[in-house]
Amino acid sequence: MTTRILFAASSESWENYAQVLPAALEAAGVDHEILQLSDAPDPATVDWVIYAPSSPLQDFTPYTRLKGVLNLWAGVENVEGNRTLTAPLARMVDPDLTQGMVEWVTGHVLRHHLGMDAHIHGAPWDPTPPPLTRDRPVAMLGMGVLGTACAKALRDLGFPVTGWSRSVKDVPGVRSLTDEDGLRVALEGADIVVLLTPHTRSTENLMNAERLSLMRDGAVLLNPGRGALIDDAALLAALPRLGHATLDAFRVEPLPEDAPYWSHPKVTVTPHIASTTRPASAARTLAENIRRGEAGEPLLHLVDRSEALA
Amino acid sequence: MTTRILFAASSESWENYAQVLPAALEAAGVDHEILQLSDAPDPATVDWVIYAPSSPLQDFTPYTRLKGVLNLWAGVENVEGNRTLTAPLARMVDPDLTQGMVEWVTGHVLRHHLGMDAHIHGAPWDPTPPPLTRDRPVAMLGMGVLGTACAKALRDLGFPVTGWSRSVKDVPGVRSLTDEDGLRVALEGADIVVLLTPHTRSTENLMNAERLSLMRDGAVLLNPGRGALIDDAALLAALPRLGHATLDAFRVEPLPEDAPYWSHPKVTVTPHIASTTRPASAARTLAENIRRGEAGEPLLHLVDRSEALA
Repeated sequence: MTTRILFAASSESWENYAQVLPAALEAAGVDHEILQLSDAPDPATVDWVIYAPSSPLQDFTPYTRLKGVLNLWAGVENVEGNRTLTAPLARMVDPDLTQGMVEWVTGHVLRHHLGMDAHIHGAPWDPTPPPLTRDRPVAMLGMGVLGTACAKALRDLGFPVTGWSRSVKDVPGVRSLTDEDGLRVALEGADIVVLLTPHTRSTENLMNAERLSLMRDGAVLLNPGRGALIDDAALLAALPRLGHATLDAFRVEPLPEDAPYWSHPKVTVTPHIASTTRPASAARTLAENIRRGEAGEPLLHLVDRSEALA
Repeated sequence: MTTRILFAASSESWENYAQVLPAALEAAGVDHEILQLSDAPDPATVDWVIYAPSSPLQDFTPYTRLKGVLNLWAGVENVEGNRTLTAPLARMVDPDLTQGMVEWVTGHVLRHHLGMDAHIHGAPWDPTPPPLTRDRPVAMLGMGVLGTACAKALRDLGFPVTGWSRSVKDVPGVRSLTDEDGLRVALEGADIVVLLTPHTRSTENLMNAERLSLMRDGAVLLNPGRGALIDDAALLAALPRLGHATLDAFRVEPLPEDAPYWSHPKVTVTPHIASTTRPASAARTLAENIRRGEAGEPLLHLVDRSEALA
């Protein structure tokens, strides 16, 4: 029987998937038909929805046959709270997205660790070497797939890494902390803090004035996660005491030209490049999840919606 | 019997070792006396010389009892060709020096891979992601202790690494090339070229106009090795076609203020911080080698002087 898949993302996005998604589904052995919102298909005939945060599809009520919604992105904050959605929701865990995140995080952690900016700006000769990584503690806030992969890469480079997460994570060589007390310990003990928690109601403005005040003088904040994890006004107020903030995610993207981050000497803006879904590998993940669902196997990367719907 | 050790480096250098070297020798069980050149000791009574390139000691002929010369640095170009030296010569392989080199090399390779400089300089929003490391080939020229450690770290981050060296090196996941043909293949195939060969007569001006012309348009050259590996005039002439050069080692250091590298927009100068001997761990290596020598065990990190003396 043909599996009917609604690609409920933008037509621009479809251009990236038009080649790779059918090929991945064929390779996974899924006999399929891909529909677009512009085809106005009968919702009651749709088996799977591939979803993007910007989709006009907001009411899932008429999708009575839905077996699952497969998000095109890692972040699910725009759909996980949708009470019309009762089918399982899976986030995108694209191995290439994880790899890209590891590259961005290790690169920028090493950049700040080595004090590269001074050399890039042409600082005079000063042969004082930086400390070694073993003397540069890093806090990873969020130990999901992305945070854990980054924590392991930093650990392998010699950084002492503390991971903070909702539940204890057993990652060899990475200290695991939880709860508000653990967050305090993680922030007070780190030279570099990396934000990779999901954006939920409890992580909105995670880095507010109080949490920022726990960071060490001269410490560096990296945000490759979600813009809403930071109280922007509080960060701008804290920056004179901090070393630097390198930010890849913002509440509004592209970051508006008049945003104070652009011109702040202690802020580096990167244009949401840390976690980009690469269509070829994402299509393989989507196809594998549809194959699993059709075969009655458990889906990969299911979202725990308990907090979002609470 | 007391082992007599001549510390034949600068008094400035001795300040760094005055505490840690005696402690390391005691920990290694070596009954010792440490002499300075300023003590004018009888050369015929000296068992070991700890040596720095800048040392005034150039004639080893009167050191008739010498069991070995232990270089304080990884580079031995200022001593390996000394025909008055017939005792074994060991280079410094400081685990912390290797670690510092790995940090500098991985950091600057990731910096260029991710195109960080544009963001650090405040480039406008452009969400095009960089390629992944697997699509960014790196050539490591020199696969000694330092080059091999860096090649492994880059391989672990996903970069395809080609190592070029005098003899074939069997490092899992790293392609090994030798000879002039291999050098051509390595240079033509890399987006980023890292120089970590020792400085010998055959590597003097290794990167001359001809070798630089083999590099890809837009490719990046990193030199954390030795200043003399690069023909500076040829590099300046090649830079319009290349992407960037990040240099940590120079023929004259500190790099003179009027050196054209300082102001060149495609050059980053770092102040010889990639490989710095850290006294505490270097002292342990020196003490271990003296213990070995006194116990009749083979020395660590012996220099093959055949090419230097040829």
